[in-house]
Amino acid sequence: MSAARLVITCPDRPGIISAVSGFLAAAGANIVRSDQYSSDPAGGTFFLRMEFTGAGTDIAGGFAQIGERFDMDWRFWDAAVPKRVAILVSREDHCLQELLWRRRRDELDAEVVLVASNHEDLRSDVDAYGLPFHHVPVSPETKPESEARLLELVAGHCDLVVLARYMQILSGDFLDRVGAPVINIHHSFLPAFAGTAPYTQARERGVKLIGATAHYVTEELDAGPIIEQDVIRVSHRDDVATLTRLGSDIERLVLSRAVQWHCEDRVLRHGETTVVF
Amino acid sequence: MSAARLVITCPDRPGIISAVSGFLAAAGANIVRSDQYSSDPAGGTFFLRMEFTGAGTDIAGGFAQIGERFDMDWRFWDAAVPKRVAILVSREDHCLQELLWRRRRDELDAEVVLVASNHEDLRSDVDAYGLPFHHVPVSPETKPESEARLLELVAGHCDLVVLARYMQILSGDFLDRVGAPVINIHHSFLPAFAGTAPYTQARERGVKLIGATAHYVTEELDAGPIIEQDVIRVSHRDDVATLTRLGSDIERLVLSRAVQWHCEDRVLRHGETTVVF
Amino acid sequence: MSAARLVITCPDRPGIISAVSGFLAAAGANIVRSDQYSSDPAGGTFFLRMEFTGAGTDIAGGFAQIGERFDMDWRFWDAAVPKRVAILVSREDHCLQELLWRRRRDELDAEVVLVASNHEDLRSDVDAYGLPFHHVPVSPETKPESEARLLELVAGHCDLVVLARYMQILSGDFLDRVGAPVINIHHSFLPAFAGTAPYTQARERGVKLIGATAHYVTEELDAGPIIEQDVIRVSHRDDVATLTRLGSDIERLVLSRAVQWHCEDRVLRHGETTVVF
Amino acid sequence: MSAARLVITCPDRPGIISAVSGFLAAAGANIVRSDQYSSDPAGGTFFLRMEFTGAGTDIAGGFAQIGERFDMDWRFWDAAVPKRVAILVSREDHCLQELLWRRRRDELDAEVVLVASNHEDLRSDVDAYGLPFHHVPVSPETKPESEARLLELVAGHCDLVVLARYMQILSGDFLDRVGAPVINIHHSFLPAFAGTAPYTQARERGVKLIGATAHYVTEELDAGPIIEQDVIRVSHRDDVATLTRLGSDIERLVLSRAVQWHCEDRVLRHGETTVVF
Repeated sequence: MSAARLVITCPDRPGIISAVSGFLAAAGANIVRSDQYSSDPAGGTFFLRMEFTGAGTDIAGGFAQIGERFDMDWRFWDAAVPKRVAILVSREDHCLQELLWRRRRDELDAEVVLVASNHEDLRSDVDAYGLPFHHVPVSPETKPESEARLLELVAGHCDLVVLARYMQILSGDFLDRVGAPVINIHHSFLPAFAGTAPYTQARERGVKLIGATAHYVTEELDAGPIIEQDVIRVSHRDDVATLTRLGSDIERLVLSRAVQWHCEDRVLRHGETTVVF
Repeated sequence: MSAARLVITCPDRPGIISAVSGFLAAAGANIVRSDQYSSDPAGGTFFLRMEFTGAGTDIAGGFAQIGERFDMDWRFWDAAVPKRVAILVSREDHCLQELLWRRRRDELDAEVVLVASNHEDLRSDVDAYGLPFHHVPVSPETKPESEARLLELVAGHCDLVVLARYMQILSGDFLDRVGAPVINIHHSFLPAFAGTAPYTQARERGVKLIGATAHYVTEELDAGPIIEQDVIRVSHRDDVATLTRLGSDIERLVLSRAVQWHCEDRVLRHGETTVVF
Repeated sequence: MSAARLVITCPDRPGIISAVSGFLAAAGANIVRSDQYSSDPAGGTFFLRMEFTGAGTDIAGGFAQIGERFDMDWRFWDAAVPKRVAILVSREDHCLQELLWRRRRDELDAEVVLVASNHEDLRSDVDAYGLPFHHVPVSPETKPESEARLLELVAGHCDLVVLARYMQILSGDFLDRVGAPVINIHHSFLPAFAGTAPYTQARERGVKLIGATAHYVTEELDAGPIIEQDVIRVSHRDDVATLTRLGSDIERLVLSRAVQWHCEDRVLRHGETTVVF
Repeated sequence: MSAARLVITCPDRPGIISAVSGFLAAAGANIVRSDQYSSDPAGGTFFLRMEFTGAGTDIAGGFAQIGERFDMDWRFWDAAVPKRVAILVSREDHCLQELLWRRRRDELDAEVVLVASNHEDLRSDVDAYGLPFHHVPVSPETKPESEARLLELVAGHCDLVVLARYMQILSGDFLDRVGAPVINIHHSFLPAFAGTAPYTQARERGVKLIGATAHYVTEELDAGPIIEQDVIRVSHRDDVATLTRLGSDIERLVLSRAVQWHCEDRVLRHGETTVVF
């Protein structure tokens, strides 16, 4: 039985759910999951995600009229079509391995179209999964050429870019032209310890928990909408190396959850924050 | 602005959400929160909870036709009307204190109509909150009379009975006649350590986490539908007294959450389990 | 059987444990718990906490020689003597209630010598526990007089000052003269959201976890050594009022743990951080 | 700088720490970490683990006299010598992958000497790490021969056997003759849901958290001393397949921690439970 999703964001007003569910019922669809959120009791923004069976996404054409009537930002997605994902990585393997291994286990509703890295270190890991690996070196002088090369590889060829511990800052120009959302994993519980060496900062501040944050990338560093965060308990005994090791377990789980949720169309942007159904 | 809730359980089939939301739209209601769950892709049970504003619960009469058409178990509830709660307790104060204190802070959408106990110990605590306290002693010989007295106090006078560490087993006859759901807190992570002295059992087994379970009471001891559970990490250093102390913090939080969710009509029974929206 | 504790901080070098445990053995003590930490493999700081029975704290005199030999900061404490604690509070009751209630249950190894507040709101709550309540109003103009009055009340009369949501900043002068450590609870996961209105900041940033931090107070606001932190998961559905309510549960648990650990001599300061045994 | 560990279990009595630390000081050792636990205030069992530098494990000979005097079960271990680990696995890859990947990252203080399986499925995964893989099929008829073959492979060649989701029950005879501790991961929060299909049991019972348990294997199924446990929150939405997937993340983390702690000599058996330093 084919399944599909409908995701809607629009100004809140009465009658939206009735109009949408009436349309789906008329199209022969059975709603199997419905999540809804209104940002305010009145006058806010309305968010809706419905999963349904029994009707294809070819019903999208007929939906345009409702979309227009309620000034909706709307999208249908066939649940059988995995999102195409490009992964950028530097030298650390843990987030990459976690994503590729989950993909192999069918735990990630995604097709990994390529892995690109500014280092050669992880080529054999990617080869082992039979996936294309591209070495795109970056230096301060060659950054524009590197980004141009990355754009050639990913723009138009993927639905999502994942920075799996990619230790380069992407320019605003790159973000404008990549044509797909970009998810990054930051190795701290943002907004604490933004920027470099968060585990060193955490050790110096003496925090009792460390964390990781998956967020959409925007031009402002480590400030984009947060998708998922988690933490782990640490103590005075844990030096920076141990914090880094403990934190890497959180990083790969948090990033995996964020990517999976995005691929299931469960993450809706709401200004500088997210709604996660 | 008055708010109300509609909670529905029925056999799953296409068109339910459309019919319900169409009815609410026609009644001038604005849906501010909607949660839905189907127990199976096809042929399962359908669960729905909607919060809406702009229409009173007096629209319930008009809903009967839809309820009949879809063979629904349905209920409207005015969000401004708190559930009437009776609390039974024995000697331990922590769960009772937590509930009364939350009620005072307006964190519990409930009216505590009375506290009854088989001991006198907590009378002054209840007095301090200006609530009625009833001493209903129980002994093996007087159990039928005690339950009869409790039924006099609570049956028909409350929407929910909470066992806040009430250390007596209620008979099937009492449960049949009380006319309201009964929530209990068990001081273990069920189904582990059912029955007596769970912290002693936990110590002997050497578990590394202990927990608590809030569940609806059924005739079978510690086997009713689970509403909420949580755990806390423990170690070899923690003796039974320490486990009891650590566990009591989990018990009162778990029970509070379960009672609050029930009072918000967010807990729907599904056979021997629950759906918690 | 009387129990006592010995807590030591000194430059690390070989032979310390041998000297200390040899001394205790000669004094007839049986060590029932020993925790030790060295900040570095070599040349760091050495921290030790031992619990022992079978010898009183009157053995302290004989220890001075060892203390001098190893350049120790050391302290014996009779486990039967509770720390004297003064609590400062403003209008929010949750942290105060938690501490007083735990004290009544014998879960806090402390004697609460007084509660002082810049508001009258919580007087009856404190009265209910039979404890002295002092109203010490503060305004920008009267701050020096207020602090002088607080110093009269607490300096020399307590071993610990606890700020249980006391919404006034204490001056450096006050901290210099109070003669006891001061523990504060901050309602965020520091260093995120220092300063005012952390839950509003958290809502705006869209974090997926909120937290609380108990720390020793230093002159720099919200920057003192952290004793304990914890978090709770939140979502887009939780507005500032809900975050405040959820966070208050974390605040009172985190503060209670920090105060209890301090009272058990389990928290040792290490520069701007803590060692918690 | 070479580091070593001394682990001691013996009847508790005064003077043990003094004798041990005096011996180490005389041998020129610097104690960098010390953990101690007494099971009872008096007359219990004493557990000690010390990490020290500056003296080799060749001092063990001189220690025998102290060991005899206090009736100790004692062991020195050179921290530079990794434990030799044999892994048994069936068809599920997640626990095996986690262990091998952590070994490659130097996060596991172990040498994996071989992987044996009753199925061929995971041979290529093991080959990819350059480790020996042995296929030892098992059927009800051939179980004695299979266990004999496994004993040939592992007895005397490893310090630890890890059952990384090995779906065969080992006989008491095997356990008697294997000559090394055996750690198993059970896919439930024991003692809940021992035996087969724990996730199905969890779904039917409607629990709100699922867990995993790493324990030493004894002849009684799923009843050996627990080393580590953890849980993850689940809901009514999670079917058995989802529980299995969510649970597998907990299984691999719990097993990894248990194996790592064992390899660091931090797990001491205490009857049917463990002391974990």
